[in-house]
Formats: sequence, structure tokens, C-alpha cells
Amino acid sequence: MALHPDRFFSPEPSQRQVARLLYAHVADLPLVCPHGHVDPRLFAEPAYQFESPLALIVLPDHYLLRMLYSQGVPLESLGVPTLDGTPYERDPRRAWRRFAEHFYLFRGTPSGIWLTHIFESIFGIQERLSAETADLFYDHIAARLAQPDFQPRHLYDRFKIEVLCTTDTATDTLEHHMAIRQSGWHGRILPTFRPDSVINLDTPDWRANIEQLSACSGIYIHDYRTFIQALETQRTFFRSMGAVASDHGAASPYTEHLSYAEANFIFQRALRGTISADEARRFTGHMLIESARMSAEDGLVMQLHVGSWRNHNPRLLRRFGRDKGADIPQIAEFTRNLKPLLDAFGDDLRLTLIVFTLDESTYARELAPLAGHYPALKLGAPWWFHDSLNGMARYFDQVMETCGIYNTAGFNDDTRAFLSIPARHDLWRRAACNWLAGLVVRGIVDESDAAEMAVELAVGLARRAYRL
Amino acid sequence: MALHPDRFFSPEPSQRQVARLLYAHVADLPLVCPHGHVDPRLFAEPAYQFESPLALIVLPDHYLLRMLYSQGVPLESLGVPTLDGTPYERDPRRAWRRFAEHFYLFRGTPSGIWLTHIFESIFGIQERLSAETADLFYDHIAARLAQPDFQPRHLYDRFKIEVLCTTDTATDTLEHHMAIRQSGWHGRILPTFRPDSVINLDTPDWRANIEQLSACSGIYIHDYRTFIQALETQRTFFRSMGAVASDHGAASPYTEHLSYAEANFIFQRALRGTISADEARRFTGHMLIESARMSAEDGLVMQLHVGSWRNHNPRLLRRFGRDKGADIPQIAEFTRNLKPLLDAFGDDLRLTLIVFTLDESTYARELAPLAGHYPALKLGAPWWFHDSLNGMARYFDQVMETCGIYNTAGFNDDTRAFLSIPARHDLWRRAACNWLAGLVVRGIVDESDAAEMAVELAVGLARRAYRL
Amino acid sequence: MALHPDRFFSPEPSQRQVARLLYAHVADLPLVCPHGHVDPRLFAEPAYQFESPLALIVLPDHYLLRMLYSQGVPLESLGVPTLDGTPYERDPRRAWRRFAEHFYLFRGTPSGIWLTHIFESIFGIQERLSAETADLFYDHIAARLAQPDFQPRHLYDRFKIEVLCTTDTATDTLEHHMAIRQSGWHGRILPTFRPDSVINLDTPDWRANIEQLSACSGIYIHDYRTFIQALETQRTFFRSMGAVASDHGAASPYTEHLSYAEANFIFQRALRGTISADEARRFTGHMLIESARMSAEDGLVMQLHVGSWRNHNPRLLRRFGRDKGADIPQIAEFTRNLKPLLDAFGDDLRLTLIVFTLDESTYARELAPLAGHYPALKLGAPWWFHDSLNGMARYFDQVMETCGIYNTAGFNDDTRAFLSIPARHDLWRRAACNWLAGLVVRGIVDESDAAEMAVELAVGLARRAYRL
Repeated sequence: MALHPDRFFSPEPSQRQVARLLYAHVADLPLVCPHGHVDPRLFAEPAYQFESPLALIVLPDHYLLRMLYSQGVPLESLGVPTLDGTPYERDPRRAWRRFAEHFYLFRGTPSGIWLTHIFESIFGIQERLSAETADLFYDHIAARLAQPDFQPRHLYDRFKIEVLCTTDTATDTLEHHMAIRQSGWHGRILPTFRPDSVINLDTPDWRANIEQLSACSGIYIHDYRTFIQALETQRTFFRSMGAVASDHGAASPYTEHLSYAEANFIFQRALRGTISADEARRFTGHMLIESARMSAEDGLVMQLHVGSWRNHNPRLLRRFGRDKGADIPQIAEFTRNLKPLLDAFGDDLRLTLIVFTLDESTYARELAPLAGHYPALKLGAPWWFHDSLNGMARYFDQVMETCGIYNTAGFNDDTRAFLSIPARHDLWRRAACNWLAGLVVRGIVDESDAAEMAVELAVGLARRAYRL
Repeated sequence: MALHPDRFFSPEPSQRQVARLLYAHVADLPLVCPHGHVDPRLFAEPAYQFESPLALIVLPDHYLLRMLYSQGVPLESLGVPTLDGTPYERDPRRAWRRFAEHFYLFRGTPSGIWLTHIFESIFGIQERLSAETADLFYDHIAARLAQPDFQPRHLYDRFKIEVLCTTDTATDTLEHHMAIRQSGWHGRILPTFRPDSVINLDTPDWRANIEQLSACSGIYIHDYRTFIQALETQRTFFRSMGAVASDHGAASPYTEHLSYAEANFIFQRALRGTISADEARRFTGHMLIESARMSAEDGLVMQLHVGSWRNHNPRLLRRFGRDKGADIPQIAEFTRNLKPLLDAFGDDLRLTLIVFTLDESTYARELAPLAGHYPALKLGAPWWFHDSLNGMARYFDQVMETCGIYNTAGFNDDTRAFLSIPARHDLWRRAACNWLAGLVVRGIVDESDAAEMAVELAVGLARRAYRL
Repeated sequence: MALHPDRFFSPEPSQRQVARLLYAHVADLPLVCPHGHVDPRLFAEPAYQFESPLALIVLPDHYLLRMLYSQGVPLESLGVPTLDGTPYERDPRRAWRRFAEHFYLFRGTPSGIWLTHIFESIFGIQERLSAETADLFYDHIAARLAQPDFQPRHLYDRFKIEVLCTTDTATDTLEHHMAIRQSGWHGRILPTFRPDSVINLDTPDWRANIEQLSACSGIYIHDYRTFIQALETQRTFFRSMGAVASDHGAASPYTEHLSYAEANFIFQRALRGTISADEARRFTGHMLIESARMSAEDGLVMQLHVGSWRNHNPRLLRRFGRDKGADIPQIAEFTRNLKPLLDAFGDDLRLTLIVFTLDESTYARELAPLAGHYPALKLGAPWWFHDSLNGMARYFDQVMETCGIYNTAGFNDDTRAFLSIPARHDLWRRAACNWLAGLVVRGIVDESDAAEMAVELAVGLARRAYRL
């Protein structure tokens, strides 16, 4: 199907008309991408070429894999490599056909929206993907991938990206970022400091991660004090490489201040491999406060993503590894859990803490009220499953009345699917303009206010929240 | 008021127009009724006649009783029989008048919608029910009930029912189902296996239920092993009588795998009448996994309804017994609670587990993500209070983006009010077509996709999920 | 911006047209204000004059203070007096300018809506408040405040207020209410009995509050029995002064019946200052049941507001005191927590218990089902952050299908900002008419039903629920 010029707008003519006008203001603004998971390697090699339509579009996208798997399509048949020696489809074209046969599953889903946008606006294909058209799509896309103007650096410009932040583990040497800077290319690809694998003491291979942290920081970590020093050293390194933010993932937003002695006691037990689940939880809660302290001091914006139960399906994890679509959200609670952190740094104007949730019941009940009071707190964009048309509508509906747009951090695309970035910003901008148009036609804001707000939501809030 | 031909559709003309077209595709499709509580006796006797307007419409409908009671109308005055000897209204016409006087309470509620539909489309009455028209309604309905074309078997055909599943306790002898089959009538009335009263060890009269299970299965139950055998025997019997599904009610979706020794220990304690609340809870959790195992093996689709606090009002229970509108929903949690069951059978393509919730905050947060990953899991239709126009809209809004329509189980009417079945399917089909029309006018799916999806939502998904 | 005549209505022409007609029925009805926080002193002095635009509009409004503070505006700079000696802005005009500069923050928020309404309909200013217009607004408002027709008693009439209930602590001597009654003025200003500060044993200065209760009731409180006697005495006094309701605030709706011995034991420990947090919680839970008992006996309607974490920000509390916008909502649970109270009084037709929540996930899951069953229970209007256009839409959407409008208590404005009362009722009436218009254009109720319902929602339900 062809992309509808008024897609995602209310069908009501007066609202649609206002939405269209507002969208015209923001449609061509550059894309500000302060949080995502694109591989920096794409930009490190000037002539980087994507491998195959399958490797480009299907394999890295856990949204696609989960939906196909839920309908009984074995991941092996989609060409997902196995870790346990089970045979899997090696022919990317045959795996692509399996995907194409099941494309109807994505009707009415964000994946359907993004893929339709990619096929039409990036590859110029207006057909519908299906068993019949699988090869046509495959051939056409494969041919495009081979052309020089399809190299990521060209696409970066074509997409009008202003800045793209990646997510990099705390022990990363940032070699690709280094290569990008040294190449003299004008693109702005920035690393983000993600210390989960050393902060969450129950991470698999935590001991090895600590050794890596020792190695890359040059600080021999043997107690809590040296651990903190090493983290601070790496933060300094990341900042020197352009980082503007850190990112933290946790099962819950639990925070608790531990004394030095307690923190060191737990850390030492972790070094000896005798940590309990509760100790790990408390240590993470303490390190969130400690990370807020570091952020207040060094200026890295602190992002906190909570509520994902990673690798919920152990059978899938054993066979295929992480990030295959088996992470499941959980209930979250912020009013009580964040209080120790907010007691310490909630009023600190040096800190920006951006919180993301998977539990929408916390939007109106906890997060908007908290962000509408604490100067340090901002509410992040609708995350993951909620990064969708209805998810955005619910976010605007439940958040904005209480904290206003100015206590939110605008949009981020949060994707590892580079090609989907324009589609995701387009969806957000249209959803935002449609929401604003709804305010205008209901007499709540006037068109000039709405136009300013549209620009803020498209680029301004993200730029300011992330100090870009 | 007359039934509006465009009822439940968006008033916006372009969306309404598409909704109308889509609805025209599905309005006359047969009714697939895979889950409900209609009494099979209605079809066992070819010339079954409904007793009175009161007995037909008011007394079995706990939605009506609760609302009337909430406004201070004593159930005695509505003709609800008492268990404790309290006098109650014996004249159905006078009780009907009490109901009619309070019909205004149902303005804007699903009961109001269903009753208006029944009065007009089944009885041809377009007046408004009130104190003034109470007798007119009563006389008209009573006259219709006496006519042969109002016998349930005639209505089954008039309603275009394709299949109607009842809900039958595990110890039921299915005599009415037997009579239906033996009568040679073409209607398809199927039993559903509901073992709550023997699986939930804290059920009142559990010991007597076990004795009944022994009796009907022919297996003397004296330990956990014989208990399982008896259940399996009854499942086989139900399947031989056409059953396609089991149904399970539980306060929460808690699941836990017990060893044989543990399960047997708890079961033996229950036989001796010394069970604790926690043991009962754990045993139910274990039996949910065990029921999933049986379903994987024998092919009965497993339905799980969780979150109802039955008989919340003890005074009402003592005087009037169960099912009088005093069941109240509770918070539910699935990501953690269902994990042991999903660890064991979530990837098993032989199993279909259909989950129903009363806690809508779990739709987008837990259930849609789970159903959008695990092949065995499907999400059931909006249940009970949520089987309403807004409840459906919230369901479409919060569920479909994440798990797509194909991981849902379509619609079921879940009613003991036989006459309301067409009204309930009509509401669902209209709500579904209106939702799809919203996708069309926003450029998310095209009309041909929407037309296919409308048929799936009306009949296809339910047929496939229940293997009908 | 000018007030839009069709503000808050759907832009869809057919719905807007019906909403307009319905609104015309209710726009000029008197304002029934059964719950709020306006200071009775305003009406005690016939010639009361508001102090300054700042003191009138900004300082008492914690919605404004929180939003400004969240964006880094120090409360000192807004003229909020400090408790700890920190200097603060003493010039109200300069503080007003700070507010005016940041007025854009309220775009799309209820505060923005109310203030715009106040500026235009009460002060006749159609400009937009900003740094540029700050002085213009200040001068204009200050001039109006000095005029006799701006005295609160004149505004009471101009606003068409029918009755206005204040909230008064249980130990209040009600001197202002006394003065109002003695003045012979026709306005109806009624006190409301709020015993939190003596019932919640962990209230700061609880011991002093008890002494005050002893003093004002004339009953020397030395045990639980005399405590109850003193409360009953004060309730009688409040009733003699026109009170129709009590109001109770609690962190959660936890209820538990304690024996006399237990209650007395805890109370005696509190008198000695040795109370634990859990004992305080249980005592509050017990006193909610005891208050329901008193309400059943003396006829005061019982209001219960739960879920606010008061003074979440300790730094702010120390410097500025209570009610500065740092109260944050929490998760609530009613099905289990209210059961002991409902077991005792849920069926008691003498009691009206009106429950308010900050956790919207309980609307459809718990509160509407409970209110749709228990005769004593009514659901209060959307509270605090949810007293907004979207908050009302969610309330109508999630509540009305299950409990109908007749189990709700209509609207109350719950404000200490006297000038905002007409704006708040206007928003509610428009939101209600728009919701009803949606039912009409979808064929769910007809226009005559809708017109009756509109009047009920505007005034009838509140009058009856509060026995006014």
C-alpha cells in the first residue's frame, strides 16, 4: 500500500487540517537521535555495505522475530544462528521468504508501519510483501544495498540526522567511535556510557567484566573504592569521546543508599562469587544513586530504563542467545523506589535524570507527578512496545496534563534498525502534531503555541534534555 | 429508542463509512460461541419453554441484580429466592415492575445496550422500559415466550449460531448434552471441562466433589495419582461428548511446579481436611501446569480466567447464594506468575492456552507481550465488565499493536443469558469494524486487509483458537 | 487567547452539535460545591479584600508552584515565604513577573485552562500572560481586587454558587462559620469534619492535637473510649453548624476491625509516644470503620481520599512547609483493603461512603465494580491531577459502563483557589456533555436521556450524594 500523506492523523477534517499545518513545520527538521542501539561500525568504515536484506531487516529486529515465533515459525527457519548446534536456514533468500509469507501478522502493528515506510520511502517499493512478492522484494533490496549511495554515511545525510548516540558498554574501547572521529567525517556519532554489566552484580560473566573494566581503565579493581574510580575514569574517557549521557537498565527503579562499608562488603562478596539476589538488588539500587552523584558532577545525562524481564524464555535463550524477542515487561513502582535517589539529588539542578517505563499505569499516577515536581527529573519518550501510535497517544493523554511537555525529554528512536529511524521520527512527529491539533480544535492552545510545541517535541526538548 | 443502524461507530463520516462497509461483510456471518454459560437443558428438551419474562431476563443476570442492589433495591423485591427463609416477592410481574422502574440506571451501560437490542430485535418492542411501560413489556414478552418459534432450538437457528459451548463442572454427567446428541437435532452444543471445584482445594464441599469425581470416573480417589487419573478419565469422557476446551478459574495466575511427593502430600492433607490457604494456592498453581500438560497431550484448549474475588459480600452470599453480582475483580500479575507454566509448555505447539484478565493494566504491559512471544499463548476477548464498547476499544488499543490480531482468540459471549448472544456479537463486530475503520482512515491498513481482519475477528480467530 | 465557545467539545460536527445543546441545558445551573478547601474567612468578613494578584493566584496554588519548581524556578523567587530564614522575594510584583515569564509551561495543562478562564471571564483580559504582559496583568488585577464587587460574597453570587463546603480540622472552633451564620448573609458555606490529625497517630504534633480535641470537645481524652466520645461530640458540633460530611485522608484504603482492647492498647501507647508505624496504620484502618459506623448513625456523608504521599520532598518541606506541590500519588488497592469496612457497613443504607482515588487503574478494575454493587458506596469525581479534561474522559470511559452515573457522586471542585471554581465546573460540565454527546451519536442513549443525565452530572448527583 502507498504511504498515505495524512497517515496517523485524525480523520476529522478540522483536526486533520491543523495537524497537517503543524506537521509541515516539523517534517523536514533534522533528526535528533539521543538514544539508540545502532552499531557504530556502520559509520566507522566509509564504504560499509549491508550484507543482505535478511541481515539488514529481519535478523536484528527482535520485534519481528518475536511475532513470527509466537505464530509457530521456528527461528531456525528464519536464519537465526543457533548456539547449540541445531541446524538453521543458511540461505538468506529462503529465510526471507518465510518472513514474507507471514508479513500479514504485522497488520496494525508498529513493525508493519515502519516496514511499509522503509519499503516505500527508502526502497521505492509500493507492493505488499507476501509469499508472491518475496523474491521481488529480495532482489530489489539486495540490488540497492550494493549501490554506493546506500552506504550508512550517505543514508545519515539523506535521513538528515543531526546527531546519533549509540549505546556502549562501560568497558568498550570505543574503537569505532575513534575511527569515525579520526576519519574527519562530518557526521556526529556519540557513544553512551552503559555500566549495567559491571554494576548489576548478578550479570553473567560479571567477574570477567570487572577484569575488563580494570584493564581498560588502568585501575586495578579490588574493592568498592577502586571500582568507583574505574567507573569515573571510564566516564571521563567516554566524555572525551563526545558522550553526553549514561544509560542504566534495571528490573525495577529500586534505590537505596548504602554506607561505604556496606557497599564495600557486598562488592567484596561479589568478587568472591558469593553474592545473594537481594544483595545484588540493593547494590544496583545504591549504584543508581551513586551514578546520579557522578552525573551531577560530570554532567552526563542519566537515563534509567526499568521494568524489562530479560530472557523470559530459557529454552530460547539457550538455543539463540539474547535479544530474540523474549524480554517481557513487568509492573513498576517509582514513588517509593526512587525516593532515596530523589532525596539526595532530586533538587540538584546539575543533574538530568530521564526515566523510561514499560508500565503505563505509572504515567499519570507517578511519573508525571514526579517529573512535574523534581527539577532533576524528566520523563523519557514512550519506550519499546509503547513507541507506537496508540502508545504515543496514551503518553500524550496521560502525561502532558500533569507535567507539561517541558518536563519530558522529547523523542528518541531507541532502535538498532538504522533504516527504521526516519519512519520512527515520522510517526512521532505526526502523532505529536495530531495531539497538538486536538488541543487546538478543542480551544486549549492556539495555533501559534501549538507550532512552537511541535518544534519542541520534534527536536527542541531532546536537544535540551540531552544537552546536545 | 430504536436501534440506530450505525450504532457504536465513530460519528466521523469517513470512518463511519468504512466501518459500515466492513460491518456489511460480517453482519450476517454465523455466531461462533466457544465459551459461555447457557444451560444445555434449553436444548435438551425440544419444546423447552422459558418460564416468565422475569426468569428469562432478570433473575439469571448478575449484571442487572448488582446494579439494582447498588441503588438500594432489595433483591427480595426483585423476586430473587432467599436461602435463609426471608420472604421474597413471589409475583414475577410485580418484581418485573421493580426492575422496570429502575431501568434508567442502565443508561450508558452494556446491560442497557444488550437489553435494548433484545427488546427491539427479538421482541419487536421499541418503547422505553419504565414504570409506565412495565406491564406492556411483561405481557408482550410473556405472550411471545408461549409461542413455539420461541423455543431455544428455534432461536438457535434464528440467531445463526454455528456452535455453542457450555461450561460444565468436571463431575457433570452431561445428561443434557447426551440428550441433545441422541435427539438427532442438528444444533452443535458442546460441553467444556471445568475442574475448579476439584482442583481448588479450598472450594466449599471439596470433599464431596472428590467423591463425586470418584463416582463418575469410576476411579477411587485416595491419593494424587488416582486424582490425576480420574481427571484424565473425565477429560476423555468430555472429549467423547464433543468438548474442545477446558476452563479454569483462579484468584491469580500463580503457577508452580510441585514434585509428585509434594503434590501428593498436600492432596492427602486436603483429603484429611487439614489444608492451609497457602497449600491450596500452591496446589492450584501446580494443577494449572498439570492441566497444561494434559491439554498438550489430549488437545483440549485450555482457558484460564483469573482475578475474580468471588462472593465479596458475605451477607448477600448467606441470603441469596452465589452469582448475584457480588464478585469483584482484583489486581493480576502474569509475567512472574505464569513463568513456571510457560517454562514447561510455552513453546509447545500442541498447547493452546487462552488467558482472560480483569486487570486491564496487564494488557499492554504483560499479556500482549507474552502472547506476542509464546506460541502456546493466546489472549482471550475482553472479559466480563470489559465486554463493553469502551472495554473493547481499550482492548484493541492496548493489545493489538503488540501482539497483532492473530495472537488473540477472537470473541466469545461468555453469557448465561441466551437471548443476549446476538446483541453481544453485534456489539463486538461493530466495535471491531469501527476499530479497523480507524486504521484504514489513518492509513495504517488498507480496506482489503481490513476486510480480512474483520472476518477473522468475527469468526476466524475463534474457530482456529478453539479448533472448531 | 479568547475562550473558545465550543472549547473541550469533540471537533466532529455532529457530536459537537449535540454537546452544545446539552451544555445549553446545564451551563447556567447553580454551582454545587460539596468538597473544597476555600478559606471560610473570605466570607466571614463582608468586606474581605484579596491581598495581591500574587497572593490571590500564585501562592495558594500548589499546581503552579510544583510546575515552576520542576523547571528550576526557586520558590523563593516566587515570593513563597520560607520557614528557615532563607531570604525570599518580598515584592509581589517581581514575583508575579517570574510567574508570568514561565506561563508557557502550563500550555496544555489544567492550570493553563483554569487561569485562561479566570483571566478572561473574571478579569476580562484576553492577552496572553508573558514577561511582556506581566505588569499589565498585575495592574489590572490589582485594580479589580480593590473594587467592592470583587469581595468574595459578591463573587459567590456572581458565580451562582448554591452551596460551598469547606474542609475543617476536627478541632476547629468554626469561628468563621459562626460569623457567617451570625451575619445573616444568605450564602451557604458549610464546614466539613476532617479528623485526620487526631485519627492518624503518626501525624506530627498528634499529642497536641489530642489536647486541643479535649479542650474543644470538653472531654478529657485519656483512653480510646473518651477519644471516641470526643470525636462524636465534635461531629455533633459540626452538624449543628451545618456540616453534611466528614473527610478522611489516608495513604491507603486499608481497613481492619480492632477489638476495643486492641484499639485502646494502641491508643494508650500513642498517648505515651511509643507508637510503631504498623500500629498507626492499623489504627487508621480501624478508625475508618469506626467513622463509617458514626456516619451510619449521625448521617454525615463519609469521604475517603487515598493514595497521596504527602511531602515527598523533605528539603522542600523543611524550607517551605506543607502544600507546596510535593505530594505524589501512589498505587492503591480497594477490593481487599475496603472489605472489612464493607463487610460491616457496605449494605447499610444509612451510610454514604464516597471514595476518591489517584490510581486510575482501580477505576474499571475495583472501584466501579464495588460502587456498582455495594449500596453504601459511591465513586467520587476524578481527583487532583485527574480533575482535567483527559482525566475526566478516562473517568467517564472507565467507570460509567460498569457502575452507571447513578453510583457516582457527581462533581466537586476540591480547590482552595476560589476564583477557579467556575472554570472547574465549566470544564466538568463541558466534558460531561461531550461524553454524553458521544453516547448519543453512537446510538447508545437518546437525546432526552442525555439531557437528564447532563443535569444529574452537573448538580443532581452531588446534591443527592451529599444530602444537600
